[in-house]
Amino acid sequence: MKLGILGGGQLGRMIALAGYPLGAASTVLEPAAGSSAAQVCGQIAGEFDDHRALYELAKVSDVVTFEFENVPVESARWLAERVPVYPPPRALEVSQERLAEKRFFQSLGIPTPPFAGIESEDDYRTAVIEIGLPAVLKTRRFGYDGKGQAVIRTPADADAAWQRLGGRPLILEGFVPFDRELSIIAVRGRNGQIVTYPLIENTHIDGILHRSIAPAPDLGEELTERAAEFASRVLTELEYVGVLTIEWFQDGPRLLANEMAPRVHNSGHWTIEGALTSQFENHARAVGGLPLGRTDAVGFSAMYNFIGTVPQAAAVLANPDAHLHLYGKSSRPGRKVGHVTLRAGSRSELEAKLPEWDSQFARTGEG
Amino acid sequence: MKLGILGGGQLGRMIALAGYPLGAASTVLEPAAGSSAAQVCGQIAGEFDDHRALYELAKVSDVVTFEFENVPVESARWLAERVPVYPPPRALEVSQERLAEKRFFQSLGIPTPPFAGIESEDDYRTAVIEIGLPAVLKTRRFGYDGKGQAVIRTPADADAAWQRLGGRPLILEGFVPFDRELSIIAVRGRNGQIVTYPLIENTHIDGILHRSIAPAPDLGEELTERAAEFASRVLTELEYVGVLTIEWFQDGPRLLANEMAPRVHNSGHWTIEGALTSQFENHARAVGGLPLGRTDAVGFSAMYNFIGTVPQAAAVLANPDAHLHLYGKSSRPGRKVGHVTLRAGSRSELEAKLPEWDSQFARTGEG
Ligand SMILES: Nc1ncnc2c1ncn2[C@@H]1O[C@H](COP(=O)(O)OP(=O)(O)OP(=O)(O)O)[C@@H](O)[C@H]1O
Ligand SMILES: Nc1ncnc2c1ncn2[C@@H]1O[C@H](COP(=O)(O)OP(=O)(O)OP(=O)(O)O)[C@@H](O)[C@H]1O
Repeated sequence: MKLGILGGGQLGRMIALAGYPLGAASTVLEPAAGSSAAQVCGQIAGEFDDHRALYELAKVSDVVTFEFENVPVESARWLAERVPVYPPPRALEVSQERLAEKRFFQSLGIPTPPFAGIESEDDYRTAVIEIGLPAVLKTRRFGYDGKGQAVIRTPADADAAWQRLGGRPLILEGFVPFDRELSIIAVRGRNGQIVTYPLIENTHIDGILHRSIAPAPDLGEELTERAAEFASRVLTELEYVGVLTIEWFQDGPRLLANEMAPRVHNSGHWTIEGALTSQFENHARAVGGLPLGRTDAVGFSAMYNFIGTVPQAAAVLANPDAHLHLYGKSSRPGRKVGHVTLRAGSRSELEAKLPEWDSQFARTGEG
Repeated sequence: MKLGILGGGQLGRMIALAGYPLGAASTVLEPAAGSSAAQVCGQIAGEFDDHRALYELAKVSDVVTFEFENVPVESARWLAERVPVYPPPRALEVSQERLAEKRFFQSLGIPTPPFAGIESEDDYRTAVIEIGLPAVLKTRRFGYDGKGQAVIRTPADADAAWQRLGGRPLILEGFVPFDRELSIIAVRGRNGQIVTYPLIENTHIDGILHRSIAPAPDLGEELTERAAEFASRVLTELEYVGVLTIEWFQDGPRLLANEMAPRVHNSGHWTIEGALTSQFENHARAVGGLPLGRTDAVGFSAMYNFIGTVPQAAAVLANPDAHLHLYGKSSRPGRKVGHVTLRAGSRSELEAKLPEWDSQFARTGEG
């Protein structure tokens, strides 16, 4: 199988690496030279809306996928007329626009924080009153890692937030006093087969994922099943193929959908060592039309991101539980340059080791 | 780290794939175009004794290793004057010559089958009498997958074997009525740290490995410890760095060394899914001077080779326990084109599933 990937970041790199043993050789479309993915597979250099480059990608691919959700929907549609594109472009479209995304969840009966679309200052003033404070004002498009957002606690904050973000299509969300953030990774095959991984507990620092624990601790069966069932509704409605991620706020017994990513996800990196089949392999299997692999957790995993500074491999691996993943990037503030996964044989072993791991892999300044 | 690899086969491919997450980018030296390894990393095209090509490899490598044991020792030595070469060239030298290898085992107190070096027909006649029948006559060099060998059960066989193999340096070994064949994978780091994987049970068909089960069933602690201790002696004596494999005959309580391979080994492929750290990753860690990873088994694994014919991925993966590894090769009789590893959570689950796996992955004709 020849796999085309839009985007040359670390997610593309890990898909390419997972593809080889299945007989899949990948080519990424990526403007930058020496990208993380292009170090391990083929590259077509070009912009994501360059039809010549897209055409070249289609020519060398049996199937095309993407590794980031801001791929132009038009490009995905254009490609889809020439070669199978999975996940379907509609999934991109829905997840690129926060209002459409929340409405989509709503239409499937999946709970979300209260929200309102904002087109004007009038809308905004009304929404602040209806939704109440605290609330979060967000741009509808191109937000990532918490960028393009403002938390509003006081009327003064409300004015400041409007000054900063007003004038673009926005969404106002009620601020959820969540206990924690969770995510679920789900996969649908070309034949409609659906599998889901256990729920993951995620901790962010400065809007960037810092740590994931999987399976998330202190979960009822019920919560896991509910998240899996919600994910299945999304997959089925979109006639989805590939890996999909949904991020949740847990507020007591409530599970509120925050957003979805139509791709493999940072919070699923632990699956490389911590599950019977990794998210990357299952994504390659799904888009390649192969049967999906088992998603059971193997032991109890913690994953930490390396942000900004490439760590010394020897220092990381001095911890005998550490599995290191470097992305072939150089150090740069705020950049995801690698991650480490540590696995324990039991929940209590994980809990006993967590404080030490937390301190070894504490985020250093640059985040 | 930039890793140079002599040889472009599937072992080099799997080392290269395991290297990327550690930050190691590989270049293989390999004469053939489109080799298994060169599909996933850089290649310098050249013969293994071409000093220009060797020089180019040294130039792009921080450290050089090899993935097959018939690398010319002279080339390894020549390289070692320019760049660190691990494992040490002496390990190549010892393992390339069966008589030297057996004597080496003997010098370390490691039991072997009875053997005698044969330089002439006189030596041969004497050895047949001293060692007795049945016996095995082998060429001393370039044997692999059982080629260059003859089993001698009768005096008539003895004559026929001499007709076929005589005139080259040979070794005659007593035929061991072994219960089974085992192997051990051991690793030594640059700092002398040694780790060993559990013993593996291997079944050959037509001289080619067919199935490995790990950890090998029905082992006393004692046998495992003994094999690990023998492996440590070899590693220490050779000031070895990297993965070393020793193949054993088990005859009741006796463990007799058959041969060693100074490299990652087909019987260790199960470690990708079946151990905390794969043999490929540990080899890359060792030669790169990184701390070694844990070698504990995760569950109970069976590995089957695909010989001759590239299987359909979908058919293999229809088995939900299957982890597929294709090598990017085309079908050709006798060629190792891929393998599959299946893992069970318990010994009894493995035993229950083995008959079904054995029949799904039975070797088809071409072996
Ligand atoms: N409605 C809300 N209530 C409370 N906290 C929120 C809310 N929306 C966002 N947050 C906080 O802000 C973080 C970032 O929000 P969101 O996931 O919408 O942003 P993003 O820029 O799309 O981030 P990502 O890179 O994860 O996609 C969340 O992880 C959460 O901690
Ligand atoms: N002394 C012996 N007694 C009994 N059987 C033997 C003996 N030597 C070899 N054999 C049988 O022949 C097989 C191949 O022998 P050996 O490992 O020496 O060959 P090779 O060509 O080097 O194979 P490989 O590809 O495994 O390196 C062994 O796996 C074993 O089954």
